[in-house]
Amino acid sequence: MFKMRVMSSVYRCFSPFPLQHFMVALMTITLLAGAARAQTADEIKTFTLANGMQVVSIPDHRAPVVTHMVWYKVGAADEEPGKSGLAHFLEHLMFKGTSAIAPGEFSKIIARNGGQDNAFTSQDYTGYYQRIARDRLELVMKMEADRMINLRLRDEDVLPERDVILEERRMRIDNDPGSRLGEQVSAALYLAHPYGKPIIGWENEIARLTRADALEFYQKYYTPNNAILVVAGDITAEDLKPLAEKYYGSIKVRTKIGPRLRPREPKPQAERRVILRDKKVRQPNLRRSYLTSAYATAAKGEAEALSVLSEILGQGATSRLYRELIVKRKIAASAGAYYSGTSLDSGSFILYGVPNPGIDIHEVERGIDEVVAKILKKGVTKKEIEHAKRILISDNIYSRDSQSSMARMFGAALTTGQSVRDVLEWPKRIEAVTVAQVNAAARKFLKAENSVTGLLLPEKPAKGAGQEAMK
Amino acid sequence: MFKMRVMSSVYRCFSPFPLQHFMVALMTITLLAGAARAQTADEIKTFTLANGMQVVSIPDHRAPVVTHMVWYKVGAADEEPGKSGLAHFLEHLMFKGTSAIAPGEFSKIIARNGGQDNAFTSQDYTGYYQRIARDRLELVMKMEADRMINLRLRDEDVLPERDVILEERRMRIDNDPGSRLGEQVSAALYLAHPYGKPIIGWENEIARLTRADALEFYQKYYTPNNAILVVAGDITAEDLKPLAEKYYGSIKVRTKIGPRLRPREPKPQAERRVILRDKKVRQPNLRRSYLTSAYATAAKGEAEALSVLSEILGQGATSRLYRELIVKRKIAASAGAYYSGTSLDSGSFILYGVPNPGIDIHEVERGIDEVVAKILKKGVTKKEIEHAKRILISDNIYSRDSQSSMARMFGAALTTGQSVRDVLEWPKRIEAVTVAQVNAAARKFLKAENSVTGLLLPEKPAKGAGQEAMK
Repeated sequence: MFKMRVMSSVYRCFSPFPLQHFMVALMTITLLAGAARAQTADEIKTFTLANGMQVVSIPDHRAPVVTHMVWYKVGAADEEPGKSGLAHFLEHLMFKGTSAIAPGEFSKIIARNGGQDNAFTSQDYTGYYQRIARDRLELVMKMEADRMINLRLRDEDVLPERDVILEERRMRIDNDPGSRLGEQVSAALYLAHPYGKPIIGWENEIARLTRADALEFYQKYYTPNNAILVVAGDITAEDLKPLAEKYYGSIKVRTKIGPRLRPREPKPQAERRVILRDKKVRQPNLRRSYLTSAYATAAKGEAEALSVLSEILGQGATSRLYRELIVKRKIAASAGAYYSGTSLDSGSFILYGVPNPGIDIHEVERGIDEVVAKILKKGVTKKEIEHAKRILISDNIYSRDSQSSMARMFGAALTTGQSVRDVLEWPKRIEAVTVAQVNAAARKFLKAENSVTGLLLPEKPAKGAGQEAMK
Repeated sequence: MFKMRVMSSVYRCFSPFPLQHFMVALMTITLLAGAARAQTADEIKTFTLANGMQVVSIPDHRAPVVTHMVWYKVGAADEEPGKSGLAHFLEHLMFKGTSAIAPGEFSKIIARNGGQDNAFTSQDYTGYYQRIARDRLELVMKMEADRMINLRLRDEDVLPERDVILEERRMRIDNDPGSRLGEQVSAALYLAHPYGKPIIGWENEIARLTRADALEFYQKYYTPNNAILVVAGDITAEDLKPLAEKYYGSIKVRTKIGPRLRPREPKPQAERRVILRDKKVRQPNLRRSYLTSAYATAAKGEAEALSVLSEILGQGATSRLYRELIVKRKIAASAGAYYSGTSLDSGSFILYGVPNPGIDIHEVERGIDEVVAKILKKGVTKKEIEHAKRILISDNIYSRDSQSSMARMFGAALTTGQSVRDVLEWPKRIEAVTVAQVNAAARKFLKAENSVTGLLLPEKPAKGAGQEAMK
């Protein structure tokens, strides 16, 4: 978390074509508290409206624009069994109009006013976003508040949208071997926790979602006490407050929101392997996930240590995986690692590798295993840690430049069990990570029984099963 | 189904020690309609009481005893997420007394009257069982009907029972590497369907089950319209009917029962492997499950073909796995196959093998793969099919000898989507299976992407992951 990173676990739809949804990168980034950039920590303010809606103000006066986001603390992991895809379905349907706005008009109005909008769904949150000139902020606040209460869904809008999502699923998952593998690896990683379900949903479950399902989910979760307003841009907290009270503060609490209790994952017991064969595969690849703690659940310093470890192991040309597999052995076209820790209940540490043409995927796996084994046995060096921290912290400084990244960072943190202060103090906590902490985190989590190894292979004639291990 | 078979997927508790629950074999057996044994098909009668409770009468006048069973159409797969183990927990708690019977007295009364009782929980059903002298039948009907309505649960009974189950889980699963592997293989086999959850429950979820959870489940599912009475033994349908009406017919419907809709499993995409290491393992073993259709969901003749296939592939000393791995190659201490098809939503086809001392598990797996590949390529022979049918049908005849097996067979069938007629006609349907059907079923289901292969291996030093495939 808190570092620019491609995360495939967020679905987003871009306006001005709300019907076309793309699974894209969510850039999660960090704020360095003391850096001399657009704003200082002191300027970031948070307050709560009487109805329980939290507001975060992130002033940025470099240009007369604002980024306005409403985040709901609900995502795919909150869906009932059999209703996978419902959070994302509702995200699509939020563009289907209200008593005041005709179906499909929302994004057009934003566009006519020179703005952009989109929306996204993760396992833990659903967010709606507009970027627009400062003098149109009230317009978008009014429209976003309106659809928090007045969503109007008609079967003639809902059912075609379900087909759009089924088509999205076919394009983005079923036709993409890498996405299929990712889905299967996640499904194997979680035995009890709903993070194992795909955000977009299983096809057979998407196909049976109804207008009533969507409305029930909306009524239950889209209530101001379950929402967070984040406004970054050319406005101060003082000016934002009366607007937030006017548009959002006037919304009544629809539902009481209890603690977010999902089934907890039992202690992992067995190493798992998932072998997916697809005729579209030219170059095999490997993706291994280890179940870990997340920023919100980790022991003190542990998630930060995993961030540092991912840097050392697999980020950039000085990382261990790169140097060993790409530079020295010349067996891999790419290889790396990253830590995905911005989730409510657990995180994951991911290793990946793509063999060079003619190289067996198992040779790349053996290489990755040896790099990991060496870290577990001998640990990381002081020098590696210092280098990793410098990179993490400077990435964090650079990313502050993006207004929308700042807004997203706070939204994601606040909907996954962290506080504004946690975000602000992240660089300090990274700075404090020790060699011993990184080694302890590696030894705690990089164990076979915590892992699922996914292999993407070209198709070959079926012969029962088990050939993969028989090579 | 319908054949004597060890199924590890049913938990049963035996009286007179209801606190000690054992996971044991459920012998599912078949009735051959025309065989000259204890009763003929004509004598087996079924009728439904006004409140919706179905009754099955299986006369058997060889001795003045009866087997009395009440089956509820609810099991572990009907639990809500986070509440795994609840169906089995309630099964234990049903021995905790009513307004008429003190806690723990139920089984003692049965025993004092010369009877035995027990109970069992599967993914699809929960059943309660007494075997007793004919003249005590009314006593057990009265007692069983009483606990369908008047269960009384006090925290002082409930909480210690939860500890008993946690201890049961530790003994039966956590201390038994084979059970641990079975649990992990099931968890990997199902990506969406609750059959992936263990019947006994995940430890962390058992630990949080409450009296209120149990009572809610009881109120929701233990209603006569969701129950089936099966009485086998020294009584005719004519004599049973007034008793059934008196004791069970008088019970009011507590809850309407809708269709049993569980999340459906998406089409399997990827071969999976689960490698469990345990220091208690002396001899490695392999267990592979293929997801298949069940008797209740299969196309016509398909489940019967899988039954025949399991016989040919892996039952007894003439089966292909036995002859190839044990007799010819001498690499396996045991090897076989079975089909588990008595479930509401899907079945599984299981292969297993245990290497001889000094033989690598991968050599056994290669042998199994080759046996399967040969069946897929060349098919089975007419002679093999005829032999398999003879065995299946004669096993079925022999098993009719057991009164309690007969009762269990009907109870299991009727709670998993089959009818009395389905059971009666099973031998005829087995008789009709063709070579082409067996080959088609093998090719449809014995595909790598339908399978999870579990390997149980001795512990060795951790080195990241992936060593299993690297051998």
